[in-house]
Amino acid sequence: MSSPVHLREGLDIPGEGRQLHDFVSRLYPWCRSITGNGLRDSLNALKQFIPVQLSEVPSGTQVLDWVVPPEWNIQDAWIADTTGRHIVDFRHQSLHIVNYSVPVQAKLPLAELKPHLHSLPENPDWIPYRTSYYRENWGFCLSHNQLQSLSDGEYEVRIDSTLQPGHLTYAEFRIQGESADEFLFSAHSCHPSLANDNLSGMAVAARLAQLLQGRRLRHSYRFLWAPGTIGAITWLAQNLNSLGNIRGGLVLSCLGDSGVFHYKRSRQEHASVDTVIEHVLADSAPGHVVEAFEPMGYDERQFCSPGFDLPVGRLSRTPNGQYPEYHTSADNLQFVKPAELGGSLDILLRIVETWESNRMLRNLAPYGEPQLGKRGLYRTTGGTSGNADEAALLWVLNLADGAHSLLDITKRSGLPLATVSTAINHLEKAGLLTETNGLQK
Amino acid sequence: MSSPVHLREGLDIPGEGRQLHDFVSRLYPWCRSITGNGLRDSLNALKQFIPVQLSEVPSGTQVLDWVVPPEWNIQDAWIADTTGRHIVDFRHQSLHIVNYSVPVQAKLPLAELKPHLHSLPENPDWIPYRTSYYRENWGFCLSHNQLQSLSDGEYEVRIDSTLQPGHLTYAEFRIQGESADEFLFSAHSCHPSLANDNLSGMAVAARLAQLLQGRRLRHSYRFLWAPGTIGAITWLAQNLNSLGNIRGGLVLSCLGDSGVFHYKRSRQEHASVDTVIEHVLADSAPGHVVEAFEPMGYDERQFCSPGFDLPVGRLSRTPNGQYPEYHTSADNLQFVKPAELGGSLDILLRIVETWESNRMLRNLAPYGEPQLGKRGLYRTTGGTSGNADEAALLWVLNLADGAHSLLDITKRSGLPLATVSTAINHLEKAGLLTETNGLQK
Amino acid sequence: MSSPVHLREGLDIPGEGRQLHDFVSRLYPWCRSITGNGLRDSLNALKQFIPVQLSEVPSGTQVLDWVVPPEWNIQDAWIADTTGRHIVDFRHQSLHIVNYSVPVQAKLPLAELKPHLHSLPENPDWIPYRTSYYRENWGFCLSHNQLQSLSDGEYEVRIDSTLQPGHLTYAEFRIQGESADEFLFSAHSCHPSLANDNLSGMAVAARLAQLLQGRRLRHSYRFLWAPGTIGAITWLAQNLNSLGNIRGGLVLSCLGDSGVFHYKRSRQEHASVDTVIEHVLADSAPGHVVEAFEPMGYDERQFCSPGFDLPVGRLSRTPNGQYPEYHTSADNLQFVKPAELGGSLDILLRIVETWESNRMLRNLAPYGEPQLGKRGLYRTTGGTSGNADEAALLWVLNLADGAHSLLDITKRSGLPLATVSTAINHLEKAGLLTETNGLQK
Repeated sequence: MSSPVHLREGLDIPGEGRQLHDFVSRLYPWCRSITGNGLRDSLNALKQFIPVQLSEVPSGTQVLDWVVPPEWNIQDAWIADTTGRHIVDFRHQSLHIVNYSVPVQAKLPLAELKPHLHSLPENPDWIPYRTSYYRENWGFCLSHNQLQSLSDGEYEVRIDSTLQPGHLTYAEFRIQGESADEFLFSAHSCHPSLANDNLSGMAVAARLAQLLQGRRLRHSYRFLWAPGTIGAITWLAQNLNSLGNIRGGLVLSCLGDSGVFHYKRSRQEHASVDTVIEHVLADSAPGHVVEAFEPMGYDERQFCSPGFDLPVGRLSRTPNGQYPEYHTSADNLQFVKPAELGGSLDILLRIVETWESNRMLRNLAPYGEPQLGKRGLYRTTGGTSGNADEAALLWVLNLADGAHSLLDITKRSGLPLATVSTAINHLEKAGLLTETNGLQK
Repeated sequence: MSSPVHLREGLDIPGEGRQLHDFVSRLYPWCRSITGNGLRDSLNALKQFIPVQLSEVPSGTQVLDWVVPPEWNIQDAWIADTTGRHIVDFRHQSLHIVNYSVPVQAKLPLAELKPHLHSLPENPDWIPYRTSYYRENWGFCLSHNQLQSLSDGEYEVRIDSTLQPGHLTYAEFRIQGESADEFLFSAHSCHPSLANDNLSGMAVAARLAQLLQGRRLRHSYRFLWAPGTIGAITWLAQNLNSLGNIRGGLVLSCLGDSGVFHYKRSRQEHASVDTVIEHVLADSAPGHVVEAFEPMGYDERQFCSPGFDLPVGRLSRTPNGQYPEYHTSADNLQFVKPAELGGSLDILLRIVETWESNRMLRNLAPYGEPQLGKRGLYRTTGGTSGNADEAALLWVLNLADGAHSLLDITKRSGLPLATVSTAINHLEKAGLLTETNGLQK
Repeated sequence: MSSPVHLREGLDIPGEGRQLHDFVSRLYPWCRSITGNGLRDSLNALKQFIPVQLSEVPSGTQVLDWVVPPEWNIQDAWIADTTGRHIVDFRHQSLHIVNYSVPVQAKLPLAELKPHLHSLPENPDWIPYRTSYYRENWGFCLSHNQLQSLSDGEYEVRIDSTLQPGHLTYAEFRIQGESADEFLFSAHSCHPSLANDNLSGMAVAARLAQLLQGRRLRHSYRFLWAPGTIGAITWLAQNLNSLGNIRGGLVLSCLGDSGVFHYKRSRQEHASVDTVIEHVLADSAPGHVVEAFEPMGYDERQFCSPGFDLPVGRLSRTPNGQYPEYHTSADNLQFVKPAELGGSLDILLRIVETWESNRMLRNLAPYGEPQLGKRGLYRTTGGTSGNADEAALLWVLNLADGAHSLLDITKRSGLPLATVSTAINHLEKAGLLTETNGLQK
């Protein structure tokens, strides 16, 4: 029976966008991976917003069907030509190294080097992003133009990396609400110098957490920053007994580009999270797209695996794989825009506001209509037509049978959410209405 | 296993319409309200058709969330100008008085009188209908033209009314059928000089009851005439233990205007009453409209409140609020037409016929087709094509699994109701078919 | 976990069609009926393909609501004019005799003969097919042109038939698969010289059975050739205790004409058999038609009666009653074409292949995604896009919750069946997937 939370009041969204872009810019050069110091430093950097708690899970730990891999760290990596000039240098761009490359020190003719070189013929100026997490290998990524300009001859290759027992790191932040049920926000945090994918999601999630912190909230919120796939799997494996608290969730990814919002439904397709987010987008995101669940994508793959089947959707602007800059050096600090980062924060705040306000309701005087007039809730002169406020009271009373939520009533009645919310508040104050419990279905 | 009831046989519908209009005309001038002698006299007048039973519920009785209000009666009411001329006189038109006005005897300048005067600027010739049941107040209704013609100066106001402990009156009539399950017809009876809303419904219901009386019927029928809202609530409160018998019902209102039929579904949306009425209208009411349930309107609001959730729809021609004459002096004896009243009676008879004929069916020889030929139900020369009569036999036998009714089979097969009914009769006579029980779902 | 069965490999479909047409041609002249030697000989002729087992059920046996009728046999039947010339002779065309005609030896004037003569005014060259199984009668069928050319005068009529206690014959062939659950193919076998209806179905079923024989199959298959209606009813009555094994089935009829395939759904409408056949037709039968269940037609009437409600659909090219040649002498050896018979066999083989491959599946590592890379099922270089093979693995793992079949996953994912099947095989080999049980829902 708390009053609705207004999270966006007084917020300077353009200013928020600029600060988010600054944060993205600071972390952009770092070489993140699924383990190692690049990841660890990035997660620690979130403390600029909120005191995240880092977990360190040792290499070799069994997590569901997987094993936490050795920790990877890298100091330096380059290819030099015969004059000793570094023609490809990891220090200029972390994408140059195939993520998880094993150490190498060698001199090779171009023919032997080439199988280790990755480029994008269709975008010859861009450097691709490549990884080799689970097979020991090494390689460099470079622009196709540069690859084609390489003359025959010998090249010196140096990769100063280590791949040895260590830890996988993830960060969490939890906000306790009035009830124990949780909404999970999850942002994968393993990609190196890629701005949209997913420094955008990491940043927006952190600022969102900061804005929720200290608020009086009906529901609890958990934020998770973890490396993709193995990080989500590790977190799931270590939290099996508390997953039942998760009543909704969102994977946040690619939230800084100029595309319209794309919501990918949870595997359940019609969970509360789906209703809430589709309502918010219909209300506030012109041209948005709602997509059916599919088992490809980001960590919704893990949350929505059939054994867990958590009600977790995914919010993006342009989704992974649907923009040419995806997984290339063109996903850079120009590709993500302050205004778009700010707009994403704004939408997430609206989502939390709506999640907070949505509730299953029960009419406490369900036999006939209660007499609203004696409670000051009805016009005193009869024979006239009712207005939307009265209609909302009647809709709420009629549908509040313990099987309809605020959003269900809004959708069925065709009235604005605010009108229905006000009616609910009036009826609660009059003692005519209650929530069935603190949890959403 | 009774034969189908033919209620419309030999009926002179135009003549019926004229008699209904005569009855409406007789009651039109009377000042009905939610209590009092205008209501009581009107309910007694129904005895012209059938021996209704009147219930008198004392003021102050708790009924669900409400309390039966004091009884209101009125002898006289007028506004006189300085010459003593009655410029507004309740005896000419009962709408002139705000229903439930407290007694007044006063001289007032126009400025003080005006807050008590109600008019309709958008229809300046018409007098509005206004009430103040639950807040003690007084007022007059007049045409906007007259209101604007009033000169400044003092006016004498007189309202000879009483508001004191008495009773709320409602009328009932019940027809016992072969089974105890009931169909409820309900017509609100509290509106003063308004012909369509709802003398039309009151009259048609009374004549319908008269035509059903003495018939051999499969189902029982209950007719209720009660003041709107408080009357339905009072009746519900006093009949809590027998509501379970109600298997279907219809609120009857606005049945005399020239509009097409509008059926508003029950809250259940797909109850037997919805199937039956939608079938009848599809068959016999060109251009009719079927509307979703909503919790505004007449006493379906009470019957369909979530605690009761009775399968009660509403039949109107033009529904409340959808015609400009609604709740004004233009809803008069010219606005309702004999032909339309007759047509409404005709449709209601068709509805009862269909309700009577609809039944859940079970094939008693469900393993393979029974041999229809040896029972004289099938062509004897094979190789030829079957006709619709044979098709109906096969459809009934195939769908009569205890979960399909006559109307369900009609809808699914696309055959005429009469053809399916005949098939059912043949199969019952042959001992191949039975009703699952006397009740509809 | 058997490998998918490839039934069509190396099959010469045009050659198959020619052999089927040869078989139809051989049986075409014989006078089949619901009992008797014409039927018995025809069922024995199936032994050309497979060793069918014939059942002989005595006349007088109670079968469900019916009784097995006396056995009918016929040696000769003709009408002679005054010169002794046989103007209508059963030996030229078995349709000339009304099936089940009682013996007659008489001289009659035309006027008395005419009530026993059947013709088709709308197709004056064709001879109709007529029966009188359950009422003792006699008659001749002839072209309308011939009927009209008959001059007045006396005619000699001779029918050498017998109608006496004997047997009703049906043929069965069962192929044992790995599980006891059965798919039923049923072809009515009682029609005399009609090629499409249903020598086409009889022949295609027999060759299909021959091709399945000796194969290693997951499911069992039962083939039934029986007279229409009474044959299916007799078979059902004698197999009440094993009907529970039937998980799907098809009535085969009219499979030799040039029309597109028509699939009539089972009464259940969404049984596995419906999913499988609609998939196969969508894939391989351009322009095919899917029809709702209705209780008219062939023996699906019996299998889908409400007491049994077996998941049995019907496959035809042009269904009964929808082509003018139906039940006339124009349904002859020119009307059915080798190519169409072959194409029907091909579609049935595809149906069996798909039925064999369809299975309910369960992911054995349902918590998160299993690590496909370590099992050689996933690209080793990350950052690149996945292909359809990987997508199929993810779809199968995600939907294999024990409530989705191979075909369900195919439909939902939009991927080709072959791609999904391959993914299933890989996952089974990797120990990540199992069938929930050997049966389809």
